[in-house]
Amino acid sequence: MKRTSRDIRTANRYEVLRRLIAASPTSRQELAAATGLSLATVATLVGELLELRLVTEVGFEDSAGGRPRGLIAVDASGGALIGVDIAETYVHVELFDLALNVLARAEEQLRPDGSRPEQVAGRVAAAVAAVVDRAGTRAGRVLGVGVSVPGQVDRDTGVVEYAANWQWHGVPLLDLLAELLPYPLHLDNPLRACTVAELWFGAARGRDDAVVVNLGTGVGAGLALGGGLHRGVSNSAGEWGHTTLVLDGRPCHCGGHGCVETYVGAPGIMQHLRELGPHSPLLHPDDQTATIDALARAVAEGDPVARAVVRETARYLGAGISDLINLLNPEVVVLSSWVAARLGEPLLVEVRRAVARHALRRPLAATEIVLSPIPTDPVSLGAATFALEGALRSVRQRSGTTVTTGRAAPTGRAVATGRAVAAGSRTAPSS
Amino acid sequence: MKRTSRDIRTANRYEVLRRLIAASPTSRQELAAATGLSLATVATLVGELLELRLVTEVGFEDSAGGRPRGLIAVDASGGALIGVDIAETYVHVELFDLALNVLARAEEQLRPDGSRPEQVAGRVAAAVAAVVDRAGTRAGRVLGVGVSVPGQVDRDTGVVEYAANWQWHGVPLLDLLAELLPYPLHLDNPLRACTVAELWFGAARGRDDAVVVNLGTGVGAGLALGGGLHRGVSNSAGEWGHTTLVLDGRPCHCGGHGCVETYVGAPGIMQHLRELGPHSPLLHPDDQTATIDALARAVAEGDPVARAVVRETARYLGAGISDLINLLNPEVVVLSSWVAARLGEPLLVEVRRAVARHALRRPLAATEIVLSPIPTDPVSLGAATFALEGALRSVRQRSGTTVTTGRAAPTGRAVATGRAVAAGSRTAPSS
Repeated sequence: MKRTSRDIRTANRYEVLRRLIAASPTSRQELAAATGLSLATVATLVGELLELRLVTEVGFEDSAGGRPRGLIAVDASGGALIGVDIAETYVHVELFDLALNVLARAEEQLRPDGSRPEQVAGRVAAAVAAVVDRAGTRAGRVLGVGVSVPGQVDRDTGVVEYAANWQWHGVPLLDLLAELLPYPLHLDNPLRACTVAELWFGAARGRDDAVVVNLGTGVGAGLALGGGLHRGVSNSAGEWGHTTLVLDGRPCHCGGHGCVETYVGAPGIMQHLRELGPHSPLLHPDDQTATIDALARAVAEGDPVARAVVRETARYLGAGISDLINLLNPEVVVLSSWVAARLGEPLLVEVRRAVARHALRRPLAATEIVLSPIPTDPVSLGAATFALEGALRSVRQRSGTTVTTGRAAPTGRAVATGRAVAAGSRTAPSS
Repeated sequence: MKRTSRDIRTANRYEVLRRLIAASPTSRQELAAATGLSLATVATLVGELLELRLVTEVGFEDSAGGRPRGLIAVDASGGALIGVDIAETYVHVELFDLALNVLARAEEQLRPDGSRPEQVAGRVAAAVAAVVDRAGTRAGRVLGVGVSVPGQVDRDTGVVEYAANWQWHGVPLLDLLAELLPYPLHLDNPLRACTVAELWFGAARGRDDAVVVNLGTGVGAGLALGGGLHRGVSNSAGEWGHTTLVLDGRPCHCGGHGCVETYVGAPGIMQHLRELGPHSPLLHPDDQTATIDALARAVAEGDPVARAVVRETARYLGAGISDLINLLNPEVVVLSSWVAARLGEPLLVEVRRAVARHALRRPLAATEIVLSPIPTDPVSLGAATFALEGALRSVRQRSGTTVTTGRAAPTGRAVATGRAVAAGSRTAPSS
């Protein structure tokens, strides 16, 4: 049993801050009612958040006949969080206030000949410097930078174990970045970033069990179980794209055959288009984005080939999602990432139909399938949330009765200057 | 966020008792070291277990130079737990002491014309009465009865929502049993019973994330995530048997096609045998058990058809297990239930080979695949464990600071006589 009182205290701290971000100002009494925590627990957690300067007292409200209740709000200006979305061809960076509003954005292109680790780290540092510069004094102190890299990452060591795009193996990205950036750094991948974004701000908020199906060039299923991200024993849970859907089916770049990804990732959808409309003008052979955009427009115009492609994609996607519903019995399945965003409602409708044909009745009845409601880049938002979680995790405990020995336990303690050292974070040497 | 301090206290209480069952006698200090909990927390939990008379003080040990340490042991005679395994053709019941040793067994046959709910409840009550009678004074007070029924069950209401064997729909089995038996009753299904048995006493013990693959007539995957059973939002998680492995493949009784179960359940294995050895004497067309037994013997003797059948079964099973490993990133995958027990090592070896071909490197490296080490009927053992968990859940809290609002929260309080009323339990009216 690795889950300790300390873990639950951190989870409760997340939850109180989440509620405050959703509805500020509010009172401790309302927070207690909304979270199911005792007033004493809420008061302790709010005290920690006040000490961290993440929230602030903003006055009192009358309570019918009783003592006036103190009101608390997120202190949007209490600090800044930076989310970095490293993709194959670009680095996209956003700077957020503590209410998770975007204050500044920056983007750097990555050229095919510029994908060495030092080069990518340099582009990231330049974009981070740009957002800090653009936000100016509004940025205040930067509490942390979350970095998302597509691939397999070790968040405890900050190493990118494997990134298929660039054939990176064992790249110590956070160490490279720590030489360039004076902020606490947190590494993870886009699948988990999107999942955490849904958990904090999207369709998984307040849900016990949710699955976030990421549809892009690659495909994955982020698991939010028991109200938290399920990482697995080596932080690689969610590799749903390589689930066998058709034994001995289409070859996959992973070396296998018939993987879900080969039927519902963007290249897989292009393959359906080739098969269903061999001479279709919708196909842009070397451009996934242009092809998916063209498909989305053609579906809206009633094009029969485009509709057939969406239906065929949904047939595979529906079978795969049904398997997730049967296995995990989630409250909600969220379709996320750029392919889902562009194909939108027409894809959703066909997926719901296909799932209704495949899934077992009892879990089906308990699940809804929705499009992600997050209007901005979920990867940057999720990455910034990792930085926020890092800041919350680093709170020094006042009254814990339990000492943790678990793998996920923080290894350091908070330092008031914002140079926190926590599990999965790296900071620059003091200068 | 539904997980509260109360949930974690219950989980910690499970963990302390689990350690005590594994190694009695032991000291509070050793328990603290083994669980990572503080000595103060362990002392409180041990106090609760002493009050429940589940454990007992058994003396002191010398600690080098320090004060003598009190030793605690499970009080095997402190009560009895009963596990009921209802299957298609029989009811198997075992009575355990608190160290989970079997003190008595009983079995009742179920005839095809005797499967009405009242008839099955009658057989269960007869077998329970038989084990209590056989155990005699050794049984002491019965703390609870766990009942496993194959199908979809609502543990909170004690209703069998659907049991395919007998076409039961919405059968209030615990209410029927409560009229016949004066003990706290707990309903669940064999998949979850086997998973909990592994979690407490088998290969999942002390592991963060485990998958228990049940291979019988039907097939399922019990999920033990974060050290606890993952039930899903409507207690139906684990329906892995109806995962699509071959799109448009073999028809399944669920109405779908290509489900895992149709390739690796006992009838699916018989189908491989029909295809690979059309006139094989190993096939007993109307007897799954005899066929699997014959296959196991023939494999041991080097029969090429039998070996090919095991290899073909492992090819499908390996693909399906790889998908679970990729998705969930577990520490261990346990092959359980009667088909796995009978085909044993030869199946395990082929499954490991097939998984090594299919699974992604990072999660594969973190996972081991093993046969269940539980030597007795895991369903009765797991069902008895549900009764033990029910007894632990019903402990009155002494010092909780948090009030729970979650779905899984106990709704009643412990009553010292053993007639506890807890979530998911039913008791007979006081007589």
